[in-house]
Amino acid sequence: MLLATAHADPALGALVLLAAIWLAAKAGGELATRLKLPTVVGELGAGMAMAACHRAWQWFPDAAGDPSADLFAAVGVVLLMFSVGLESTVPQMLKVGLPALRVAVAGVIMPVLLGLGAAFLLIPGGVSLPVALFIGACLCATSVGISARVLSERNAGSSQEGRVILGAAVIDDVLGLLVLVLVSGMALADQAGGGTPWRAVGRTLALAVGFLGLALSLGRLATPHLFRMANRLRVEELLLPLTLAFGFLLAWVGGHAGLAPIVGAYAAGLILEPTHVEFLEEREQKSLEALIHPLVTALAPIFFVVMGARVDPRNLLDTSILALALSLTLLGALGKYLAGFVAGKGFDPHLIGWGMMPRGEVGLIFVATGAQLGILSGPIQSAVVAAMMLTTVMGPIGLSWRLNQVPNRPPA
Amino acid sequence: MLLATAHADPALGALVLLAAIWLAAKAGGELATRLKLPTVVGELGAGMAMAACHRAWQWFPDAAGDPSADLFAAVGVVLLMFSVGLESTVPQMLKVGLPALRVAVAGVIMPVLLGLGAAFLLIPGGVSLPVALFIGACLCATSVGISARVLSERNAGSSQEGRVILGAAVIDDVLGLLVLVLVSGMALADQAGGGTPWRAVGRTLALAVGFLGLALSLGRLATPHLFRMANRLRVEELLLPLTLAFGFLLAWVGGHAGLAPIVGAYAAGLILEPTHVEFLEEREQKSLEALIHPLVTALAPIFFVVMGARVDPRNLLDTSILALALSLTLLGALGKYLAGFVAGKGFDPHLIGWGMMPRGEVGLIFVATGAQLGILSGPIQSAVVAAMMLTTVMGPIGLSWRLNQVPNRPPA
Repeated sequence: MLLATAHADPALGALVLLAAIWLAAKAGGELATRLKLPTVVGELGAGMAMAACHRAWQWFPDAAGDPSADLFAAVGVVLLMFSVGLESTVPQMLKVGLPALRVAVAGVIMPVLLGLGAAFLLIPGGVSLPVALFIGACLCATSVGISARVLSERNAGSSQEGRVILGAAVIDDVLGLLVLVLVSGMALADQAGGGTPWRAVGRTLALAVGFLGLALSLGRLATPHLFRMANRLRVEELLLPLTLAFGFLLAWVGGHAGLAPIVGAYAAGLILEPTHVEFLEEREQKSLEALIHPLVTALAPIFFVVMGARVDPRNLLDTSILALALSLTLLGALGKYLAGFVAGKGFDPHLIGWGMMPRGEVGLIFVATGAQLGILSGPIQSAVVAAMMLTTVMGPIGLSWRLNQVPNRPPA
Repeated sequence: MLLATAHADPALGALVLLAAIWLAAKAGGELATRLKLPTVVGELGAGMAMAACHRAWQWFPDAAGDPSADLFAAVGVVLLMFSVGLESTVPQMLKVGLPALRVAVAGVIMPVLLGLGAAFLLIPGGVSLPVALFIGACLCATSVGISARVLSERNAGSSQEGRVILGAAVIDDVLGLLVLVLVSGMALADQAGGGTPWRAVGRTLALAVGFLGLALSLGRLATPHLFRMANRLRVEELLLPLTLAFGFLLAWVGGHAGLAPIVGAYAAGLILEPTHVEFLEEREQKSLEALIHPLVTALAPIFFVVMGARVDPRNLLDTSILALALSLTLLGALGKYLAGFVAGKGFDPHLIGWGMMPRGEVGLIFVATGAQLGILSGPIQSAVVAAMMLTTVMGPIGLSWRLNQVPNRPPA
């Protein structure tokens, strides 16, 4: 026993898990590349394969339920969204503000209504209005990480459609938060007999919008001064740790304002403009992009593999669940796809529609909240999760396909 | 409550902790730079300051006891040792094999004997031989991460002394492992009345030496083929994830062979030679060094801040503990310093002596084992940990000072 514990290190399991995730991600990416699918679909598939291996052999590293993998995945997607945010600036995003707002509002209302209808029609035994509404609400939040990855791989993150997708996804996160508070409040009120929690909704809105407003206005004014002060320091290798600390702090504050941390990280990326760090870049003889990119390359795939590993296809063996899942998938996809058409003249609606399609962490949080409050039964949870995952796989495939058809979209 | 949990994310705490560690590391690094001390000393101090802040204000991020910080620290030091290993190759290390072996053996025997003597003379009430031996053994294992960082910052990792330090530290880890098994077996036998566990010692030696032997021989033959096969893949951005997976897998196997994971990671770096990856470097238009370096810049400081945060200077308020700690520090430092003189002609003994001085994770594992087996009392544990930490701070200061005196040492 002494031998085994001599250098026992709790991080040992994490080392092999990370190595397995990297190898699986590249194997999945290779398969996807050969099938002409986006890399991220291969990574999601690699996660599903890893989870299946872990179910078959207990000793196989568990990508779905390991806290270290979760942590690296969370940090990976924060880094990804920060680096995507760095590709745009606040004024560039404001130019697409109105189209993005229209896409976001339509992309929340339509999936909720369609999902609500499907829940009423398809769930055996029927459901109450708040439960049906909750199911629809699970389909409303876009998971922008996946589209951001595809856009960034195809150098389309700063195209006008890319910016509408990213901007709409940020607004979408605020709207999704409101819908969650409203709908879960209604469902609780339905069970307990209280009223709709308008005050809570108002407070949530104020907090989320307040954070984004302050970050994008005051934050933008303060950032150049902060980095100019940093330039007076003598210690070496400042650029990367300082920008990372900046991005992670805003992700954390955003999380406390009720938003997804990735929205805060994206806002941090928008605020930080190339001119703020050019002194430091010159001094260290390295561009911020060259420093951040390897971190994203190493950590972002962990997020996608872990997301894939959480999908359990065995849930779909029940035909009534499968029917509900497929209907929710189609309606959820259709709702977001149609939202692309309200962007306005000059935008490619298909590109935006496909880009808005993937659901992910935020939707999973909806499902977890619904489960916790006793609103969603186990089988319904499976169907909703399956629908979110299917839209998540369809999204990048459609987005890549459309990017092939309309390459080189103009910047906003 | 719903509001607070709406997007509740377990990684939120990790985000602010990482941001705080990065900012503290750079503040500490700045102070150290202005005091003409090595950056790593500033980072250790930043960790101590963070721990003090956490003790004063509960809300302040806890760098000493947080599992996420531990995980990132462990991954950071594995990355650091892997990248330091990449600077040398197996044939270059074999050239310094004999001097490194001499330094390692002397550097284990001398601190053990000196520490044993101090324990006998200074501990009030006296201790048994196995306990005194155990205290001495805690001082035997060099923590090479810190010296590796200083050597690498000063471009001295591939100097002849740099290679002796790194090689001796690897052998040291094998010897330390044996000493731990032997001494804890003797202490247990002393308590229970059994014999010295020679069979366990033999098995441990075979496992550790077998791993290193196989990795450096077979591993070195297989690696070029593995990376040539990888070059046939079509997926992009292969170089970084594949090399990371390679380094992490060897760190994991090394950990299971009873060695510290950083020894496995260092071996992986030695095995991997520039020619193995030059196809991939050309294809991706990026050098492996340019890809790994930002990861090390971001993650290695986390290790040093966490190490610093674990030092609690309040332990030294008791004068008898302080006297024991200072004696163990001086004797522990002296033992390693003298080891530098057995390297042989042409080597700078002072450089090697200072480089071998820091103790760290491995010594902490000794203390934890001693505590678990009931061999070391609480106050003795504090004194030993304090001594290890003081040598850890003295090491890089002395090493930097000596590197200023004898710059540009020849390569081995």
